[in-house]
Amino acid sequence: MIPASLTSIRTLDQATILQFLDLGQSIKSNPSAYQGALKGKTILQFFVENSTRTRMSFESATRKLGGTSIAFVSGTSSLSKGETLLDTIRTIQQNGIDAIVMRHSSSGSPELIAKTTKISVINAGDGSHEHPTQALLDAFTMAEKWGLHFKQTNPFAKKTILILGDTLHSRVARSNIHLLTRLGARVFVSGPSTLTIKNFELFPKVEWVAFPDKILGEVDAVMALRIQLERQAQGLIPSKEEYRHFWGLTSERAKKLRNGACVLHPGPMNRGVEVDPEVADSPQSLVLKQVENGVYVRMAVLSKLLGGLES
Amino acid sequence: MIPASLTSIRTLDQATILQFLDLGQSIKSNPSAYQGALKGKTILQFFVENSTRTRMSFESATRKLGGTSIAFVSGTSSLSKGETLLDTIRTIQQNGIDAIVMRHSSSGSPELIAKTTKISVINAGDGSHEHPTQALLDAFTMAEKWGLHFKQTNPFAKKTILILGDTLHSRVARSNIHLLTRLGARVFVSGPSTLTIKNFELFPKVEWVAFPDKILGEVDAVMALRIQLERQAQGLIPSKEEYRHFWGLTSERAKKLRNGACVLHPGPMNRGVEVDPEVADSPQSLVLKQVENGVYVRMAVLSKLLGGLES
Amino acid sequence: MIPASLTSIRTLDQATILQFLDLGQSIKSNPSAYQGALKGKTILQFFVENSTRTRMSFESATRKLGGTSIAFVSGTSSLSKGETLLDTIRTIQQNGIDAIVMRHSSSGSPELIAKTTKISVINAGDGSHEHPTQALLDAFTMAEKWGLHFKQTNPFAKKTILILGDTLHSRVARSNIHLLTRLGARVFVSGPSTLTIKNFELFPKVEWVAFPDKILGEVDAVMALRIQLERQAQGLIPSKEEYRHFWGLTSERAKKLRNGACVLHPGPMNRGVEVDPEVADSPQSLVLKQVENGVYVRMAVLSKLLGGLES
Repeated sequence: MIPASLTSIRTLDQATILQFLDLGQSIKSNPSAYQGALKGKTILQFFVENSTRTRMSFESATRKLGGTSIAFVSGTSSLSKGETLLDTIRTIQQNGIDAIVMRHSSSGSPELIAKTTKISVINAGDGSHEHPTQALLDAFTMAEKWGLHFKQTNPFAKKTILILGDTLHSRVARSNIHLLTRLGARVFVSGPSTLTIKNFELFPKVEWVAFPDKILGEVDAVMALRIQLERQAQGLIPSKEEYRHFWGLTSERAKKLRNGACVLHPGPMNRGVEVDPEVADSPQSLVLKQVENGVYVRMAVLSKLLGGLES
Repeated sequence: MIPASLTSIRTLDQATILQFLDLGQSIKSNPSAYQGALKGKTILQFFVENSTRTRMSFESATRKLGGTSIAFVSGTSSLSKGETLLDTIRTIQQNGIDAIVMRHSSSGSPELIAKTTKISVINAGDGSHEHPTQALLDAFTMAEKWGLHFKQTNPFAKKTILILGDTLHSRVARSNIHLLTRLGARVFVSGPSTLTIKNFELFPKVEWVAFPDKILGEVDAVMALRIQLERQAQGLIPSKEEYRHFWGLTSERAKKLRNGACVLHPGPMNRGVEVDPEVADSPQSLVLKQVENGVYVRMAVLSKLLGGLES
Repeated sequence: MIPASLTSIRTLDQATILQFLDLGQSIKSNPSAYQGALKGKTILQFFVENSTRTRMSFESATRKLGGTSIAFVSGTSSLSKGETLLDTIRTIQQNGIDAIVMRHSSSGSPELIAKTTKISVINAGDGSHEHPTQALLDAFTMAEKWGLHFKQTNPFAKKTILILGDTLHSRVARSNIHLLTRLGARVFVSGPSTLTIKNFELFPKVEWVAFPDKILGEVDAVMALRIQLERQAQGLIPSKEEYRHFWGLTSERAKKLRNGACVLHPGPMNRGVEVDPEVADSPQSLVLKQVENGVYVRMAVLSKLLGGLES
């Protein structure tokens, strides 16, 4: 069942995830058929944390569906005046908003808003919690590369994906783990132990390897996560050189990948740290495809939640 | 007579005020009849001071009338390069702007611009001077609650309104005092003497009470003003706890209100300081209605000034 | 031949410059004939440096041609996250962008982007390098004043223009020198020697005079450049008073101009430093005309590069 809001992948069943992805494929094959899906609808782009790519992607998706975007930019807002988040959202809603695309540093805030207002909320990244549309676009992009479709259950049943880097703080990792395991994939994580998810009981199907090298030859995709450079000052990684040495997706490591295996990165990339420039720009890399497909996947999400479309 | 610009309530006669409000009621009852009123018009949203609700409300109003908004956001502007305000506005005008909605920290700056350019100016708050559309939407919202219409003179003749808080620095208070007295209402102000309007000769019809308690049972509406928390550091209020104790619209005070009396706040609210959460969320509270009606009232103002509409 | 991008004046031949300007004149005489030229096109306004007038002018031009603008505002972007400029642009492009209008503090960055992506790039000012549309609008405005048209070669053959101020750091000066000499004009520069272009071998047709006074009676136009007030702290000008004394376009100096000679300034102006208020607001001044014509010239550039129009 399509929910009113999309705040996490964890709470979605497999059928719902597949519906979003399948609609994304339909939209990509014929975008103009959907250009009136958001006609007369106004979407608030509520980004309290910085973002270029995600905000532009949602604005682009809104525009291609015939909807109108309004941007709420943090810093020029009453948030700095001591108003509660809930009062801010309630106020904004009175201007005739049909949905909120929301990025916020507080984990769980989109869920709070979804529960306490009548408006549709799309989580565009909340703290270290989830970033559901990123996981959808990552799955979409891998499937496209592999020629898979989302009409069947467990489309990723024979696939193995390695998520490489700071899984502890990464909402991208969390959403991807939930989604990939739910689509039937085998998922490995690797990274410094200081930056690796702790509660493996929450992620029972995930396997951990200290270093990526020994499984690189067995995976179908490697997803390199962005390393926050401030983790050095926090003592969580010794230096970016050492991070690259042990966990960076270097040219040498990329050579160990099987033929047809692909490389993903949610961006923005630290070239020369978590991924070498030669790998980022290689034919194995799906980095730009991820961005392109992000628009189609977000069109699918917006259409499903707001456009009254049922696939 | 409808002026070319709306820079203050003080300079408007009663008939003009009633025309704006009456048109607001017509628009609310049938918004779609006005959707082409600003077709082909471009409105500059010139906000040099922070604002969420006011800017979004004007943008929403512009959009619903079929006009186009351009945002001028302070900080990314040549204002920080030493250009005079007048040069900035003259320059902007050359891009084919039909009206400027303007918020600025200098009292009187919208009037200066209106006098020295040919463009329509709508004051969206200037320093401690006026915020005319806020007063219009407040009157609109009270009238809606009370079932009053603006076809008659002195529609508020039998109403008493208490304005509670920092009337000294508040442009909302000033515009409301002018408007409410001109519509025939009796107006009380109450608040710390350090934060109360000084020149009572400018506001001859306003009555002052040191503490709100003794008149709460006699008023039809209480308008709680936002307290700027930096007033503590300035020594103008002892602490926010003491402010709440003497002038806050607490649950206890709200119980003293007559049946049918209502509560307003221009937002953003400091919950637990000038208004208790229970009061803000009670059925007496018109806070969200104020925001909703703000769009209709601003549609009325934009239509009157620019759309060639006469009611 | 019309290039795919407009990154500099220096690399354009005279015929191309004249085509842009001639189309600008056609558009100004009948703007509505061009209102569909960018239908369905999306233009990214990528302004990493502050700008009011240039960004609004390009947005206005885009709108008048029926195109859509997306603003990329620095500071709320991944640029501050260590992503390379090229990765940022490549990412943005995936959202379906047809052209980038780009302002950046690094000289040459628009050219880099134009060379390494397939997208049209319009330089809206890069470091101390060039600001080609400013030079186009300046030439357009002078020609309009003088009744000249761009059908002929060397339309400015009998004109002399003085560029007054900091030519060393000014991209406006550089683009103007290239354009004016290419249209056949005689060009003088004057200003403090610490702020005057050094490599006269790059600008062989430019003549230098230490002080403007002795040639003011011979010029057809004076273009006063904005003085960056921080040049004082850098020791490049002694004080703004002394700058005005020797190189400011004062009322006294303006009186020495011939009948019909005109005054330009790219804005924002420091009134009382590089230009006196009486001169800025005099009938000789084309300052507001420059801004107005900027929209038509930018419409011409956008149409030529993107609209498939050939004049």
